[in-house]
Amino acid sequence: MRDAPESRLGAFFDRVKPGVEDALDRILPAASAPPAVVHEAMRYSVFAGGKRLRPVLALAAYSAFRPDWDRALPVAAALELVHTYSLIHDDLPAMDDDDFRRGQPSCHRKFGEAVAILAGDALLTLAFETIAGCPAFPPARIVEAVGMLARAAGTREGMIAGQVRDLGAQGAPVDPEALEAIHRAKTGALVEASLAIGAHLAGAGTDPMARLAAYGRRIGLAFQIMDDILDETAPAGDLGKTPGKDRAQEKATYPGLYGVEESRRMVRRITSEARDQARELGEGAGLLVEIGAYLESRTH
Amino acid sequence: MRDAPESRLGAFFDRVKPGVEDALDRILPAASAPPAVVHEAMRYSVFAGGKRLRPVLALAAYSAFRPDWDRALPVAAALELVHTYSLIHDDLPAMDDDDFRRGQPSCHRKFGEAVAILAGDALLTLAFETIAGCPAFPPARIVEAVGMLARAAGTREGMIAGQVRDLGAQGAPVDPEALEAIHRAKTGALVEASLAIGAHLAGAGTDPMARLAAYGRRIGLAFQIMDDILDETAPAGDLGKTPGKDRAQEKATYPGLYGVEESRRMVRRITSEARDQARELGEGAGLLVEIGAYLESRTH
Repeated sequence: MRDAPESRLGAFFDRVKPGVEDALDRILPAASAPPAVVHEAMRYSVFAGGKRLRPVLALAAYSAFRPDWDRALPVAAALELVHTYSLIHDDLPAMDDDDFRRGQPSCHRKFGEAVAILAGDALLTLAFETIAGCPAFPPARIVEAVGMLARAAGTREGMIAGQVRDLGAQGAPVDPEALEAIHRAKTGALVEASLAIGAHLAGAGTDPMARLAAYGRRIGLAFQIMDDILDETAPAGDLGKTPGKDRAQEKATYPGLYGVEESRRMVRRITSEARDQARELGEGAGLLVEIGAYLESRTH
Repeated sequence: MRDAPESRLGAFFDRVKPGVEDALDRILPAASAPPAVVHEAMRYSVFAGGKRLRPVLALAAYSAFRPDWDRALPVAAALELVHTYSLIHDDLPAMDDDDFRRGQPSCHRKFGEAVAILAGDALLTLAFETIAGCPAFPPARIVEAVGMLARAAGTREGMIAGQVRDLGAQGAPVDPEALEAIHRAKTGALVEASLAIGAHLAGAGTDPMARLAAYGRRIGLAFQIMDDILDETAPAGDLGKTPGKDRAQEKATYPGLYGVEESRRMVRRITSEARDQARELGEGAGLLVEIGAYLESRTH
């Protein structure tokens, strides 16, 4: 989003990002707090240069319904903790076996496998502790947010389901339905949940929540297809990881199934639908409309 | 506890255990539900013959304050999910590298490392989903239970802190304070939290909660010392894992530091103190008094 600073979205991003960084810094134990090695590893991975996309989406969705997004910062930061846990565990030798992440050695390359496993476990645990400890919202709303996040991270339709299916699909041909199911669970579920949790904390009603879910499904899918495209096309320096790794591991990807150009067309179509859905959310959803346009612009 | 069926504790155990098993069965996705392999792995480890100690402690603590313990069954089962996740991850090759658990191949030996890591992640996630989805208690109480469990599982004074310290202590001499700190975090925190969460859900006040915490600290420590003693002295068939493994890995243990006989004396002293504290909780805490006596009896 740093590519679009002139937009409302860019301005919102510039405004909320320091708050997200600050919330993460306050939530994470000090690197010197014993047992230091796991806290160092948690901070190493959380502060490795992530775009904070999920927190920003949560805060943008919150802002569609209420202006005081700063109250939701701890919960937004918790979404980033869950995202980071999933990256640490996905990079492990037994999983995707990635030595680099965001241009630096992956957590297990830096701290060893045992500490990396525990750092991931700890970030997931801390995410729930953080949401439960957020005093800004009524308990009933917090309980629902905990459930939404757990489902998005879980084995039925969540991140773990996506990772299991992704591992199972390596080296085997996948059809379009299976590919969408992998992506929807692996990336889409947490993106959708980030938007939904933001809106829910802001007190959005049933009807806007349903519209937002439809929007979130498309945005989540578009993000994953963009990631697949970038893995194929971006120079290593931009990507921060080994480019073409997906293809080398015979992973199921959109460019692998449809080619890069058709994948770009799909992102444009999906984000265009998402923009239309965001518009139906009314005046406050301008940021969400722009997220669709922003994603679309990255395909050119 | 099956050794003491004639006691009130044994009768309570016989009464609640089927409910715990049933709750676990209802909470866990079917082994055939896609993606099946992770659900199979979760069920394999959860139904590997665990004693359900943490759920029973939670329900016993609940029963000290209210009779309708069946309302707390989903939360009690969630404690077992967290315990099982910690066993799966602790057994991984990068951690304690245990091939057997409860007499069967450990999760990663049976399903591979990737699935074992994900099954552990999934059980932890499902525990929070389960507590958040428990309709029997007011949201404020559920939120507090989520926080208590997350802290008990976390890096400050919880299970992950204990595991990090335990890994760091292997092969190096430890002093009594360091040993107690490892054990208190690794086993004690979740045992204490099980008791505290049970009492909290039942609406226990501040004063009983403080007494229960003091009791729980002792019970948790006694359980871990007993585990250390059994690792040294029990035949392999009884233990379900490789006996003497702690010593072979140069782990920090009570028998290693104090010898088996002195460790038994310590369990008797600690459980005797715990019994006294349980008595101060009044009439309803008979089961908790008996837990102390039961532990004491196992040292003979």
